[in-house]
Amino acid sequence: MKVGIAGYGNLARGVEAAVTKADDMDLVAIFTRRDPATVSVATDTPVYAWDDMAGMADQIDVMVLCGGSATDLPEQTPQLAKLFNVVDSFDTHANIPQHFANVDAAAREAGTIGVISCGWDPGLFSVARLYASAALPNGADYTFWGRGVSQGHSDAIRRIPGVADARQYTVPVPEALEAARSGENPELTTRQKHTRECFVVAEEGADLAAIEEAIVTMPTYFSDYDTTVTFISQEELNANHAGLPHGGTVIRSGHTGLADEFADTIEFSLTLDSNPFFTGSVLASVARAAYRMRQDGQIGARTMFDIPPALLSPLSAEELRAHLM
Amino acid sequence: MKVGIAGYGNLARGVEAAVTKADDMDLVAIFTRRDPATVSVATDTPVYAWDDMAGMADQIDVMVLCGGSATDLPEQTPQLAKLFNVVDSFDTHANIPQHFANVDAAAREAGTIGVISCGWDPGLFSVARLYASAALPNGADYTFWGRGVSQGHSDAIRRIPGVADARQYTVPVPEALEAARSGENPELTTRQKHTRECFVVAEEGADLAAIEEAIVTMPTYFSDYDTTVTFISQEELNANHAGLPHGGTVIRSGHTGLADEFADTIEFSLTLDSNPFFTGSVLASVARAAYRMRQDGQIGARTMFDIPPALLSPLSAEELRAHLM
Repeated sequence: MKVGIAGYGNLARGVEAAVTKADDMDLVAIFTRRDPATVSVATDTPVYAWDDMAGMADQIDVMVLCGGSATDLPEQTPQLAKLFNVVDSFDTHANIPQHFANVDAAAREAGTIGVISCGWDPGLFSVARLYASAALPNGADYTFWGRGVSQGHSDAIRRIPGVADARQYTVPVPEALEAARSGENPELTTRQKHTRECFVVAEEGADLAAIEEAIVTMPTYFSDYDTTVTFISQEELNANHAGLPHGGTVIRSGHTGLADEFADTIEFSLTLDSNPFFTGSVLASVARAAYRMRQDGQIGARTMFDIPPALLSPLSAEELRAHLM
Repeated sequence: MKVGIAGYGNLARGVEAAVTKADDMDLVAIFTRRDPATVSVATDTPVYAWDDMAGMADQIDVMVLCGGSATDLPEQTPQLAKLFNVVDSFDTHANIPQHFANVDAAAREAGTIGVISCGWDPGLFSVARLYASAALPNGADYTFWGRGVSQGHSDAIRRIPGVADARQYTVPVPEALEAARSGENPELTTRQKHTRECFVVAEEGADLAAIEEAIVTMPTYFSDYDTTVTFISQEELNANHAGLPHGGTVIRSGHTGLADEFADTIEFSLTLDSNPFFTGSVLASVARAAYRMRQDGQIGARTMFDIPPALLSPLSAEELRAHLM
């Protein structure tokens, strides 16, 4: 199957690596809205201008969209679904129903398939929540993120006057993890579940106290959390905080038995050196499934909830039953 | 949807509780090979003789088979698939391909659907291995079981002359779990991964040393493991070892990145007060999916690898996208 990538940033580098390493996929094109001559990619994949896409519909089985959820994907996924089978990682949870409807309409009209909101959250974590709630209907869910870098929170700090650079780590509170595992279904507040650690490079002569105050009182991003701010040099940030590690844990605890007499806990967790490279690897497996669903005659929007897991694997159904069941 | 249960033991009690508690399912019949008058069930579900099944095909949407994998299910699942949509928990891993073929032939001929090998291993653990291997193709899998009661190993001890009763716990070795999580993909031997703890009630005057020797040298079951044998009274066994707790952990560790430069770990774990009640709860969710797949026109054998996870849940696709994605 022939795969294309639309947009070339961190996530696209992850998709590029995963598709390149998969024996059953060829990465045939990377599209950019920048001047292709200025974009240097990690493999020898040809780079094309965004507007070249329209003429290449017959050369690409699945297009993996690597833009952002704020402004890129709400426009791009429905648009590109008119030309290609598409996969995206749209992660604005509250807007997933609307995005699904937009992609579904475009894909049905064009006779393509569009799988939205793939990756790990939404994605593998969503699937873990679904299996856990189906297996243990009488229970409660908890999702913890981190320890890992939140790019959105890091960006929010960088927009504060006097800040030269910043890295924000989301950190689950160990006591909250234990409470979720306990089976007692505690109600946990935002503040009880996660803390936020900020490493900030200030501009020369900036007012550090004002920066710290601006961070810890920032609504939505920080004011509901116990937040620590540590000022460091650009050198230290580059040396110790260059990576994009992430991960997290989905926990469901609940009860079985006619009288709810048995307590059970289900847990799914990820520890990732590189958030975008792992997410890219998940997107590559979903591209395989999208191709197979389209080959099977399906059209319209899908999420990972709709994908039989066997379709994600390069192994045949027989191999899976013999070796992974 | 109307559900039947074929065979009434521990697992059936779990299915009975789960189906009874599901708003979208009615448990309409329990079938037994014993005299129905002698079988007392936990709910007010009517109990029928095994041979009554044939006349009730139109009253049951899905039959959940609760027999054993050694001799019951290889016969029963293909046989009952001629009359009903069926779900089983066949767990002899090596024979899954043959069992699948037998059920597939019977179900295709009858126009029914048969989902085999459901539960947690095989079942949710299989699905966890599949998602993890698809997301992280360059890696290695580890499955640990326990701490929990192995009924097969407990039975094997009970067959030793001089043994009145026994309970065997399978226990994962903490150092092996850590090694699997390390991302170094160690090769772990059977002995390194699990230990076996045996609690044995001896008959009056039995030769304890001979019993212990018979246990620890028993091929397949114990000789490849570090096994401890503790003799206790029947009262102590009844008081402290009456339950059937189990659980385990599936770990996949591997690498992403063009040069395998990023290490990732994926982990799925279960901690269960009651193995049969949790397994029964999973079977109930699969019965729901089987019914929906049949409604959709599908026939033949399936495993949980073939089931889009959305079909397991009582929630609609819209609700799932809005609340669990």
